[in-house]
Amino acid sequence: MLNDFKDVINKVKGKDPKKIVVVKAEDKEIFKAALEAKSEGLADFILVGDEEKIKAIAKSNDFDLSCLTVINQKDEKKALLESLILIRSDQAHILMKGKISTGTLLKGILDKETGLRGNRILSHCLVGKISNYDRFIFVTDGGMNLNPDLKMKVDILNNAIELANKFDIEKPNVAVLSAVETINFDLPETIDAATLSKMAQRGQIKDCILDGPVAIDLALSSESAEIKGVNTPIAGKTDIFLVPNITVGNVLGKSLLYIAQGQAGGIILGARAPVVMLSRSDNASVRLNSIALGVMMCM
Amino acid sequence: MLNDFKDVINKVKGKDPKKIVVVKAEDKEIFKAALEAKSEGLADFILVGDEEKIKAIAKSNDFDLSCLTVINQKDEKKALLESLILIRSDQAHILMKGKISTGTLLKGILDKETGLRGNRILSHCLVGKISNYDRFIFVTDGGMNLNPDLKMKVDILNNAIELANKFDIEKPNVAVLSAVETINFDLPETIDAATLSKMAQRGQIKDCILDGPVAIDLALSSESAEIKGVNTPIAGKTDIFLVPNITVGNVLGKSLLYIAQGQAGGIILGARAPVVMLSRSDNASVRLNSIALGVMMCM
Repeated sequence: MLNDFKDVINKVKGKDPKKIVVVKAEDKEIFKAALEAKSEGLADFILVGDEEKIKAIAKSNDFDLSCLTVINQKDEKKALLESLILIRSDQAHILMKGKISTGTLLKGILDKETGLRGNRILSHCLVGKISNYDRFIFVTDGGMNLNPDLKMKVDILNNAIELANKFDIEKPNVAVLSAVETINFDLPETIDAATLSKMAQRGQIKDCILDGPVAIDLALSSESAEIKGVNTPIAGKTDIFLVPNITVGNVLGKSLLYIAQGQAGGIILGARAPVVMLSRSDNASVRLNSIALGVMMCM
Repeated sequence: MLNDFKDVINKVKGKDPKKIVVVKAEDKEIFKAALEAKSEGLADFILVGDEEKIKAIAKSNDFDLSCLTVINQKDEKKALLESLILIRSDQAHILMKGKISTGTLLKGILDKETGLRGNRILSHCLVGKISNYDRFIFVTDGGMNLNPDLKMKVDILNNAIELANKFDIEKPNVAVLSAVETINFDLPETIDAATLSKMAQRGQIKDCILDGPVAIDLALSSESAEIKGVNTPIAGKTDIFLVPNITVGNVLGKSLLYIAQGQAGGIILGARAPVVMLSRSDNASVRLNSIALGVMMCM
């Protein structure tokens, strides 16, 4: 059983490490993350970008990149295309964002001819672990889709279920979050939650135990559910927290880190390969955990 | 300086305690909260409701209500009206919800003739304190207004500023929360945040230092602001967290309690008297803290 990110990292580091291709890798922070992940045995790296710049940045920061592969490609579009080809031809397994705008990267991923489009939309899932809750907390989507509609929520959820499965959680408990447990016609998210509940009951959403709308106290605490008189199988043992919009997900995900000082990592799901997008405000541990999540999705 | 709710309670308990009138008080949990607040010296209580029922419930639960005033009134509407008269005539100072529906209570408060309508809308403010943040966290509105518009947000904010002032925070730092720091036309909350920022700059919102849109990591951590390159005076020292909708506020407020295991209390502001509405899922400490917030607003 996986109890924290140390277990995750131990699980995914192997003798035949997966290959991560970084699009436009000329960035000090990317080097740091890649070197640490490499030294932990998490993954091998292919840095696609301006080799001259890469070498210059490495030199001026005293980084030894000799253990990483560098492919020289100055042009952004070509670097992206070459990276996608490496994934499509199975020479690399995880895509990682370097010094390229999110919009350009996503456009490349979603290109019907040359991209990595899967059957579902792309979505972000944050995985957190705090000391006073005995399971991993999967928050989705607090990083990519602003105000998803019902169909998008189903995709977002299925993406997260696949990730939870990799954590050996066979049928994750899913809370469709709102501020209340009753349907409120002025809160459309509660209507979506009701529909998702019925879809789960009818087998249109599979491989999870889902209930909603629920407020987060009930999702986290069976005592709260008892006091409120809400009978739900997920109370106090929710794995996946499906949020109504990006701001709820952002606040919840960051609360795990900044309010509860827990561990976390994030990953973009739904493409034919996992996509790692590190943020400037991610600390070293979040970066490593995020890379580990990417590797885990390939197992 | 107030460091936690113990300090708050010490500050508000006095020799001339304020009077709290409870509408339809026939409820065991209400008795518990009132007796504890009374014994702490926080407030005196006037229980308006069915005296027979009140006595029966007290007897069967071994509560001694002799230290509380009971006014016999079986009829819900009359009980509400009598409670409002007590407040309007200054015989009581804080309204507290008993066994009466929220809708009925609010309708009574908002009645133009007999109610307690002030110049602003009613709004909920949660006050939390966690161990790893050195100030109180005011979250508003995570309990009452579902999707406030810009004008409502100004009222909600002014209500919270008044409460923060009672905590001796003269010019509270306000973060207008979103998931991002840049204006995104597909996230209307960021446009509201921009407008609120300009209003504060032009002196249309007073007595605070306001910035937004900001994500919560930046509001809580000056380090995060530095890494993100966002220059804002509130980073890492935000007092008031103004949220775009009830679900964000609900998740943030409950995160303080259920994820960070902090202290919290809540209060309804904006009427001519503070309104205490305890929730079934509030534990004893939240109940006491909420009553203390009501008393504080009267000081």
